[in-house]
Amino acid sequence: MTKFTQITLSSPGKFNSLGPREQERTSELKEGEVRVSVKYSGLNFADIMMRLGLYPDAPKAPFCPGYEISGTVAEVGANVKDLKSGDHVMAGTYFGGQSSEVVVPSWQVQKLPMGFDLKTAAALPVSGLTCDLALGELARVKKEDKVMIDCGSGALGALMISYLKYLGNETIIGLTSKQEKCDIIKERGATAMLLDDWLAHGPKVDVIINSRGGRSLKEDRSHLNPLGRMVALGASHMVSKGGLSYLNVVKEFLGMEKVNYINLMHANQGVMGLNVLRLFERPEVLKRSLVHISELAASNVLVPAVDKVFKAENVEEAYDYLGQGKSRGKVLLSWDH
Amino acid sequence: MTKFTQITLSSPGKFNSLGPREQERTSELKEGEVRVSVKYSGLNFADIMMRLGLYPDAPKAPFCPGYEISGTVAEVGANVKDLKSGDHVMAGTYFGGQSSEVVVPSWQVQKLPMGFDLKTAAALPVSGLTCDLALGELARVKKEDKVMIDCGSGALGALMISYLKYLGNETIIGLTSKQEKCDIIKERGATAMLLDDWLAHGPKVDVIINSRGGRSLKEDRSHLNPLGRMVALGASHMVSKGGLSYLNVVKEFLGMEKVNYINLMHANQGVMGLNVLRLFERPEVLKRSLVHISELAASNVLVPAVDKVFKAENVEEAYDYLGQGKSRGKVLLSWDH
Repeated sequence: MTKFTQITLSSPGKFNSLGPREQERTSELKEGEVRVSVKYSGLNFADIMMRLGLYPDAPKAPFCPGYEISGTVAEVGANVKDLKSGDHVMAGTYFGGQSSEVVVPSWQVQKLPMGFDLKTAAALPVSGLTCDLALGELARVKKEDKVMIDCGSGALGALMISYLKYLGNETIIGLTSKQEKCDIIKERGATAMLLDDWLAHGPKVDVIINSRGGRSLKEDRSHLNPLGRMVALGASHMVSKGGLSYLNVVKEFLGMEKVNYINLMHANQGVMGLNVLRLFERPEVLKRSLVHISELAASNVLVPAVDKVFKAENVEEAYDYLGQGKSRGKVLLSWDH
Repeated sequence: MTKFTQITLSSPGKFNSLGPREQERTSELKEGEVRVSVKYSGLNFADIMMRLGLYPDAPKAPFCPGYEISGTVAEVGANVKDLKSGDHVMAGTYFGGQSSEVVVPSWQVQKLPMGFDLKTAAALPVSGLTCDLALGELARVKKEDKVMIDCGSGALGALMISYLKYLGNETIIGLTSKQEKCDIIKERGATAMLLDDWLAHGPKVDVIINSRGGRSLKEDRSHLNPLGRMVALGASHMVSKGGLSYLNVVKEFLGMEKVNYINLMHANQGVMGLNVLRLFERPEVLKRSLVHISELAASNVLVPAVDKVFKAENVEEAYDYLGQGKSRGKVLLSWDH
């Protein structure tokens, strides 16, 4: 078998530009590379932005999106010591993950803990790295911290809440804009708060995880205690109901405050930014975190949530579902082999 | 004795406006207050800025400057349980510390560890709180971090270097603009680096303590590793040779970048600000840190450096000395009783 299937985004910003395309294998594995037969590919918010033509780091179209997979090692290149054919693995991919097979440098591939479910594993790389790097490495959360995360009902929220509960944090507030998502936040062990309530009378906290971006960064920062910190992860509120909200895009760019150091000093605060994709240039950082999240998942410190699995050929449906903000966990594509 | 002496700043920005003035005690101690007979008063960079008329938080003149003292408890008000007359103490003061006696809420007063020298103690409150809050609370330094501090040769530098050595940090770079100050940084156990060398080819680090402000914030930030953080403490480079450098003031305001969240996300970095004076509104935060630094000093984790003691009546000489950037540790005023 020398053919495989890749999801291809042909014209970002246009309808009907996303679908499977058959590809031919063109080259042998190079030294240090691994070929993985993919079972599940994860979808992320960045994919939604990319489909809408609004992601600065996207490659030139047509390209195959996707940052994370789980599957089975099919073949290893020279000098790959820690993996062998048949191993169950997860991997972070710098694009190209929404494909029935991927070839990546071995450091991006992490062998799964014994018995770890492939479906659950596909929910781990991007959200797990984000959780570990945002809470553990950037904010360096302590158990005494009161924490607010604005993405409590999704795939990242599941991991962050389980991680914070493990640390022992007593105040974990999960925001949602939808009343019907309060339950899932509570089930995960956090306090659910509607966005409007937070903005109107939310308490002061020590750590804020902000994935909405734009104006919300300034609004959230006013809820930080002295010596508190906020980590900015993205700009999810630019998208609304599965499409670009042009009103929100304008608000995003006009409303995103630039932070003045004098202001930070007066308030005794910190602001931080995280973009996991940019860390693919730093293998030692990502690999360390990939090993770490695999250990944390093995011991149930990180508890991933999978919301829904779509067959890969129904990729547009999957993107629509995630983009409409309905999911309560990771949305996956599955591949038949 | 109902009279005491206060250093008074009568006309910020003008020459000959700083000197001792005799005062009359006007009121009894209120509940929770403590009167301390001051032995030493510390000088800080903020005092220099205030004398030059360039400190936004300064009270209306005339006023008594000073943020830290050591001395002996003279009298305690009702409901002060943890202190008694005769105790050796240090205290943080929100202005008014450059005085032969001070009256402050008891939480600002910290009993000294047995046998702790009063002269050394006066070098502890402001620099100790800054060290503890900048490195411990805001940056949350880990021993794996490579750290650069731009104030390695002064009073704060002494504490930060001793604190980092205790943590076990292997890379501690102390900056100085003066060749002759390299030795003191090395003696303290850090790597000395001249400012120009740092800017030209300084290594990447994980934590930066920046007290120079202005343009240097952007310059320093380019030396941050991904997942690194910079704490901004002040704007020392606005002052040059004991006076305001107008050129530097212009550079300060024109050159201080405003930080864009998108830029922070791309770089995976954090920026933080600290102004200890603003934390006097948060007794629980400052008290916790005051207790902490007292413990750290008792066990030699924090090793304060006193450079020079001036008699209180020679206060102008003391300010000139600190402002000219000659000191290698805390500059103190001493009071005779």
